[in-house]
Amino acid sequence: MINKLIDKITKTNAPICVGLDPMLSYVPEFLQKKAFEMHGETLEGAAEAIWQFNKEIIDKVYDIIPAVKPQIAMYEQFGPAGLVAYRKTVSYSKEKGLVVIGDVKRGDIGSTSAAYADAHLGKVKVGSKTYSAFDEDFATVNPYLGTDGIEPFLKVCKEENKGIFVLVKTSNPSSGEFQDRLIDGKPLYEHVASKVNEWGEGTGCDSYTAVGAVIGATYPEVGRRMRAAMPKAFLLVPGYGAQGATAADLKDYFDKDGLGAIINSSRGIICAYTKEKYMRFGEGNFGEAARAATLDMIADLNSVR
Amino acid sequence: MINKLIDKITKTNAPICVGLDPMLSYVPEFLQKKAFEMHGETLEGAAEAIWQFNKEIIDKVYDIIPAVKPQIAMYEQFGPAGLVAYRKTVSYSKEKGLVVIGDVKRGDIGSTSAAYADAHLGKVKVGSKTYSAFDEDFATVNPYLGTDGIEPFLKVCKEENKGIFVLVKTSNPSSGEFQDRLIDGKPLYEHVASKVNEWGEGTGCDSYTAVGAVIGATYPEVGRRMRAAMPKAFLLVPGYGAQGATAADLKDYFDKDGLGAIINSSRGIICAYTKEKYMRFGEGNFGEAARAATLDMIADLNSVR
Repeated sequence: MINKLIDKITKTNAPICVGLDPMLSYVPEFLQKKAFEMHGETLEGAAEAIWQFNKEIIDKVYDIIPAVKPQIAMYEQFGPAGLVAYRKTVSYSKEKGLVVIGDVKRGDIGSTSAAYADAHLGKVKVGSKTYSAFDEDFATVNPYLGTDGIEPFLKVCKEENKGIFVLVKTSNPSSGEFQDRLIDGKPLYEHVASKVNEWGEGTGCDSYTAVGAVIGATYPEVGRRMRAAMPKAFLLVPGYGAQGATAADLKDYFDKDGLGAIINSSRGIICAYTKEKYMRFGEGNFGEAARAATLDMIADLNSVR
Repeated sequence: MINKLIDKITKTNAPICVGLDPMLSYVPEFLQKKAFEMHGETLEGAAEAIWQFNKEIIDKVYDIIPAVKPQIAMYEQFGPAGLVAYRKTVSYSKEKGLVVIGDVKRGDIGSTSAAYADAHLGKVKVGSKTYSAFDEDFATVNPYLGTDGIEPFLKVCKEENKGIFVLVKTSNPSSGEFQDRLIDGKPLYEHVASKVNEWGEGTGCDSYTAVGAVIGATYPEVGRRMRAAMPKAFLLVPGYGAQGATAADLKDYFDKDGLGAIINSSRGIICAYTKEKYMRFGEGNFGEAARAATLDMIADLNSVR
């Protein structure tokens, strides 16, 4: 799957993914109204509004980007109905040829971790049949529980040709509280990075393993060092745009060939229609506004890599 | 909610919770068959089998225990249908007067963390209506992202009178890879424990805050020190039974009044009917076997606290 991601980045010349993290308040009035007319002001109604919103965004950007990253929390808050919308979003994105990174940040141990790995990347057996519950291409994973939590994901990644991104250094202000603390003279996140290298061994393709790392865009100096510390790990980089990082900050997240990192933007793209710069499109054309913002983001990043 | 948990523990004289973590293979043949007759060998069929299994266990133990801890991964692997079974399990347990600890181990930042907090402990707004998606009483939370990930949960805990258990030192063999590493002479988990104290300030009741800690039963020496380090945090303790910890190991997890810790057992109880000791009940009476194993566990723990 990492091959497919690299191919798609090369073909689209766009090292980005669009974060499909719709708060209900991001969905234009008229779409919410339509969904509520069908399902009432219910969890199903909210889920339908979000799905229709995503579908329009996907339709307008799928040909210019390699990947999307739906954030499952935004769906989970609407219960099982929300998770139906999540599944539809994953499946429709894949139909459109996109690589899907499920931003699920799961982390547990043993058979529980295996259940999460099966849920998101693998298959589950029911009597004589097998099913895929959500079937993303990649999932994000939390490392706090150590190798026991990661191994079940590695097993499924090998069987199903999929991949994970392990949280190493996150983009938020308080990420340093634990991640930056020094252990034997090195921050915790560097120890996690060493494990990412170890976990990746023997997976993926020649250039990159199936075990990538999440490195926030908001700490450029960390990005530069982590790029060097994990030469075979693809970096998933949140924090561009709404969280404050600029293209200049991201130069050193890429390899010398301009690969090795995929930069996420969520609100900057899916809410483009509400920003002054793209307001001319109007609420009814929120998909076109998202496309314009995506093209601008691609140009911006390509100016530095 | 922490008051309710303490009241229930005192009334039942049982410092335990039953882990509702059903693998489909734990569900007796006859129940699986019945569910598949209704729904076929589908994700819905699997979810129905698990729900019927849980219902029988709850019916047989609800009067002798204070709480249950459903592990969401076991439901998530069956997709939205599985999460319907999870929600039914939460809601039925609450109807029966049980405190429900959602073992979800979520961890993210900002609006995403808020969405998880709303999903599991709070409410979500849809037009002019509000809904609770899963509505557990407590949720387990991963601390790797720092305060940014915890604050949205604290806000919801205060509004809804609910609580969280933060992963501090987990029960698995590789928990030490990061959690035990020394920072300024103290293991990482002790630094997390300090934050648990800070996060808990001004929440909960006189004796305990709304912010508890997960401390594995498999490291008794750690349990003793953590009990002292977090005097106002309730401990949620996995690892008894199937993972190898005994009652003797757990003595020091309790306060001098015998409170302050709730010990979880999952397989040891819900799969009791498959163990030699309880096999006499037969597969058809798996609920009675679970009750017998629960009573034995309570007596075992009360011998040390």
